[in-house]
Amino acid sequence: MANVTIASLAQQLGMSKASVSYALNGRSGVSEETRAKVLSLAAELGWYPNSSARALSQSRSEAVGIVLLRDPADVGSEPFYMSVLAGIEAILGEREQNLMLRIVAPETGAERRDLGVYRRWSGEGRVDGVLLFDECRNDPRAPLLTELALPCVWVGGAHGATARSAATSVDQSGDALTVVEALSERGHRRIAYISGLAQLEHERARSSAVEKHASSLGISMVVVASDYTAADGEMATIALLAGLEPAARDFPTALVYGNDLMAVGGLSALKKLGLSVPEQVSVVSWDDSIMCQFSSPPVAALQRDIAELGRQSASLLLDIVQGHEPHNVRMQSAGLRQRASLGVVRRHPNQ
Amino acid sequence: MANVTIASLAQQLGMSKASVSYALNGRSGVSEETRAKVLSLAAELGWYPNSSARALSQSRSEAVGIVLLRDPADVGSEPFYMSVLAGIEAILGEREQNLMLRIVAPETGAERRDLGVYRRWSGEGRVDGVLLFDECRNDPRAPLLTELALPCVWVGGAHGATARSAATSVDQSGDALTVVEALSERGHRRIAYISGLAQLEHERARSSAVEKHASSLGISMVVVASDYTAADGEMATIALLAGLEPAARDFPTALVYGNDLMAVGGLSALKKLGLSVPEQVSVVSWDDSIMCQFSSPPVAALQRDIAELGRQSASLLLDIVQGHEPHNVRMQSAGLRQRASLGVVRRHPNQ
Repeated sequence: MANVTIASLAQQLGMSKASVSYALNGRSGVSEETRAKVLSLAAELGWYPNSSARALSQSRSEAVGIVLLRDPADVGSEPFYMSVLAGIEAILGEREQNLMLRIVAPETGAERRDLGVYRRWSGEGRVDGVLLFDECRNDPRAPLLTELALPCVWVGGAHGATARSAATSVDQSGDALTVVEALSERGHRRIAYISGLAQLEHERARSSAVEKHASSLGISMVVVASDYTAADGEMATIALLAGLEPAARDFPTALVYGNDLMAVGGLSALKKLGLSVPEQVSVVSWDDSIMCQFSSPPVAALQRDIAELGRQSASLLLDIVQGHEPHNVRMQSAGLRQRASLGVVRRHPNQ
Repeated sequence: MANVTIASLAQQLGMSKASVSYALNGRSGVSEETRAKVLSLAAELGWYPNSSARALSQSRSEAVGIVLLRDPADVGSEPFYMSVLAGIEAILGEREQNLMLRIVAPETGAERRDLGVYRRWSGEGRVDGVLLFDECRNDPRAPLLTELALPCVWVGGAHGATARSAATSVDQSGDALTVVEALSERGHRRIAYISGLAQLEHERARSSAVEKHASSLGISMVVVASDYTAADGEMATIALLAGLEPAARDFPTALVYGNDLMAVGGLSALKKLGLSVPEQVSVVSWDDSIMCQFSSPPVAALQRDIAELGRQSASLLLDIVQGHEPHNVRMQSAGLRQRASLGVVRRHPNQ
């Protein structure tokens, strides 16, 4: 059964190989009755056209690729990737497409190590298009993929659509406004944003959006760069608050974290510093996850639908691969899920 | 550059297409000097043999496959999968192999939905082998993959090696002994194991191992089946303890959870029931993760090296694909990471 071939089908049906081949490939030269007979036996025996032979004739690989330029161990503890993959898989599964995945540890070298994978995949015809994460300033993937003429979608990106690329763009400014307004309503007048990797485009967009909205609401703000891990979120929090008195004017009463891992790292730091949440400091996370739900106290978070971001990105890429005009898709902005970590400033110092 | 072909190489070098083809494919018919010239220009221009053409001639796809039969949303919140994928990717990346991934939601139907994917991949020649998760009793994948002659590795499985399959086996009994001894030393005499899906082979192995070791140490034990989600871990805990008095003889003083998600769900249940951890109930998780580390209190857990399980499984599969004799690999048993959730029973009731 693993080795059903055109020859074996022909033999069983008492037909020529050419007739079987015509029937299977939808070409003329056989009657509809014969075609039906061939297709029915082929289906029964589990015959599939060899993907390599089909790819050569159709020049489609029926696979889309993802290369993550992150330490595999970090990816392993980051709920974002698994959620977005789950959404991507839901669409690829429906449309019988395959996902090719690589996780490449960054190295300090002359060239980013993911670029070679795109070149190789393109040269070998392994994928019909790629989904791109973690867009950087002057991202070297943009010119490379244009050069390779490989369709791509920037997931949560800011790129405009081109001949073969588009982005699923996230409303960073709207999300920032949601967070800042929630803090403002609760009396916070000094806040900190603990961001992820500062070279990422979406972090630059968020930081400046938080800053803009805070400023227009009379809130002062400081940004600290971290790296999305819980351990670094904890360290960044300790560094931020070390030596500050909770009663002092420059003490931030709310800490906003760029993801859930840094937020739980932050909770751990606050406990070590003897600060109570939310009585002395409120905590808000940009990403929601089971960790925010089950931490102590549970952490208020933007309810961004990460799986939906994956679904939209995969659909968009498949549309581009099939020749549709690329167009950016704008994701809905998220509401804030209130939880115990977000409290009211009862008596603001020096006010 | 995206379209470097044998014809364009031939033109630039002023050679025949046949000579260029002979040179690239390592066949005789050209001088070594000519071959070197062709290979050097090909490398410079970024020429890769089309993977479909190469797969046809080599009958290798240079990809391994994984099909997870789980709800994509559940996979998205399960740190186990991302950690094991990270380990698998580390090996595949080193050996320049690709990973093909599918997540297929289970459906109540005549046949498991993942089986069709294996048939299809095998028939289309898309993967050289597959990594199998979540082995069940009388798992229908075993006869299917034998029939398809597709190399496979049962990740954390109990299968014996066959002509084209092997397993990375986890020492469930050793791990169970580690947990039960840690509880025994701390005075626990009645415990509960909240297991994952009961149809999984490794859960059956764990439950019976915990039971055996508990019994030999004079500990009584109850097993409750849950489904690896935090929500169900919480519900199972409430159902288990509802109506029991902490001072009663049959009240379990320690709850062992089959994974980290159920353990944090359990913490949440215990908080709702007004039970303090570890003063009234100790909590231990079979899987460690950032969630156990940052929950409140932090949860003691077996330090199973999930990424290493992924690395060993991927290496084993690639060896089998390359024609090595399949042999099972036994994973090292894990130590217990003591954390605040695991305490001593100070005064056992009725003793």
